[in-house]
Amino acid sequence: MNDALAILISGSAGNWEPRRWKQQFAAALPDRKVALLPQDAVDPADIAYAAVWKPPAGALLAFPKLKVVFNLGAGVDALFAKPELLPKVPIVRAVSGDLTGRMGEYVLLHVLWYHRQQSLFDDAQKRREWIAPDQWAAPALRVGVMGLGTLGRDAAIKLKTVGFDVAGWSRSRKDIAGIRSFAGESELPDFLARTDILVVLVPLTKDTRGIVNRKLLSGLARGGVLGGPVLINAGRGGLQVEADILGALDDGTLIGATLDVFNTEPLPPNSAFWTHPKVRITPHNAADSDPAMLSRDVAEQILAFERGEPLRHVVNAGTEY
Amino acid sequence: MNDALAILISGSAGNWEPRRWKQQFAAALPDRKVALLPQDAVDPADIAYAAVWKPPAGALLAFPKLKVVFNLGAGVDALFAKPELLPKVPIVRAVSGDLTGRMGEYVLLHVLWYHRQQSLFDDAQKRREWIAPDQWAAPALRVGVMGLGTLGRDAAIKLKTVGFDVAGWSRSRKDIAGIRSFAGESELPDFLARTDILVVLVPLTKDTRGIVNRKLLSGLARGGVLGGPVLINAGRGGLQVEADILGALDDGTLIGATLDVFNTEPLPPNSAFWTHPKVRITPHNAADSDPAMLSRDVAEQILAFERGEPLRHVVNAGTEY
Repeated sequence: MNDALAILISGSAGNWEPRRWKQQFAAALPDRKVALLPQDAVDPADIAYAAVWKPPAGALLAFPKLKVVFNLGAGVDALFAKPELLPKVPIVRAVSGDLTGRMGEYVLLHVLWYHRQQSLFDDAQKRREWIAPDQWAAPALRVGVMGLGTLGRDAAIKLKTVGFDVAGWSRSRKDIAGIRSFAGESELPDFLARTDILVVLVPLTKDTRGIVNRKLLSGLARGGVLGGPVLINAGRGGLQVEADILGALDDGTLIGATLDVFNTEPLPPNSAFWTHPKVRITPHNAADSDPAMLSRDVAEQILAFERGEPLRHVVNAGTEY
Repeated sequence: MNDALAILISGSAGNWEPRRWKQQFAAALPDRKVALLPQDAVDPADIAYAAVWKPPAGALLAFPKLKVVFNLGAGVDALFAKPELLPKVPIVRAVSGDLTGRMGEYVLLHVLWYHRQQSLFDDAQKRREWIAPDQWAAPALRVGVMGLGTLGRDAAIKLKTVGFDVAGWSRSRKDIAGIRSFAGESELPDFLARTDILVVLVPLTKDTRGIVNRKLLSGLARGGVLGGPVLINAGRGGLQVEADILGALDDGTLIGATLDVFNTEPLPPNSAFWTHPKVRITPHNAADSDPAMLSRDVAEQILAFERGEPLRHVVNAGTEY
């Protein structure tokens, strides 16, 4: 029994119920030992694979015969917080159509909400007032997607399908039909200057921590159909400087922000975001992972790996994504 | 000068500013007389074309040489309210990518809103509470689009792109990839029984007036991921029996309704819809017509017609759409 799967899931991650994951993995890998740690007794030398979400620092070094780590989310920033405590084995990110689709839903909903001025209509309804504001069509709204990985690319394509004027920014240039691709630091100012709604979907790495700061927000388009720019962060809280976002909202640099992620999660009750009239908060649920789908994906990868096929979605230790 | 265009627009239609239309038509048809009636002086015998929105009953009979009527909206129900007062010439509906796209935006926004349980998060934000409800993915939500004309078909395809389980109902069967087509009275019960969110986009005709009534609403899916069915009417107010909708909301037959259209518009201040906690009201703006786009479309049709080409989107007097 040297090909067992260990599951290490921090209890602090809200919706992630460890036992639910164990049931799903046991069902997906019926002929294999599946141990939920630290609860289950297991010989560390039996563990060949680890499925993890925010495991305790250094915990993965306990398994001398570990072959692959599967991260149960798209972002591996929690693992790379202490890269020196990671085992020297491939780390695989969760990439599933389910997770990608959910992120697309979230981005579409919140972009459409601003685009269609829905808060005007909700306020008018409270006043029993039938209003008739001018309404532009989707091509007049410039959406900028920061990060064109699996999630960003899919969101950008869906936004384009609805008709928005979509551009993307990423480290390297991408070729996506109908979507202008800006690349690297040097093209960031031009990308920001044509963006009415900024959708942040970059991975959190040493290079991107705090990237959503006053300087970046000040570079977004002035005016535009919304009257000013909007921030949507569905990536990671560590990408944003929260005092800068509040400042930008208060001085009119931003006209609104929809935030799914925060520096501290759950967002503390005393955060100024909760009651800010220009902020909409969602509780880090833009793209919940579905244990049934993700455990099936991991099981398929393990079986393929044992047949000698290459692993997919292996994290590059240099870029940390 | 016998090929002039007359514009007849009722002042009661909210957003439609008649002078703006005249400017646009004059720009789109630079070599032709464009008269805004009743303001402008014109010889009725000069009028070959009429561009109309809710013209006064019988007004179109004043033009002895009228060749074509262009309706400045997708729905011609206002004209067919008194079909005996319509001239015996082709009536052309507005069909534009702009109008179709706007309707798609509206349908996506409001379906996504219910799907993603956004009202839970808005309420939780008011309580400063970080909640973690289960969230299903789009394939678990069954959307039913009633009416698969230009608008309904486009909305259904966009919903499918996001991943929803989409079916459509129409008078005759349609062939749309990935979308189950139900046809005619006999298949309406099966269509309703598999529908969590009903999107109403049928034309208002003598056959569809009052179709959204208690009997229809009672046939919608029970349970489902939302806990009960939702109505979205972005078609015409005349399609709905408003007392039946209120009754269905109050007895739990419906868990929510988003209504863009009403029996009387603007919706009177004393309507129970304004303050109903399960109702979201938008002021008949799901798909505003853009004067610049529509006037260009009408101008192109006039020039093609004069070259001897067939008119497109001519209304069938039998079906009234």
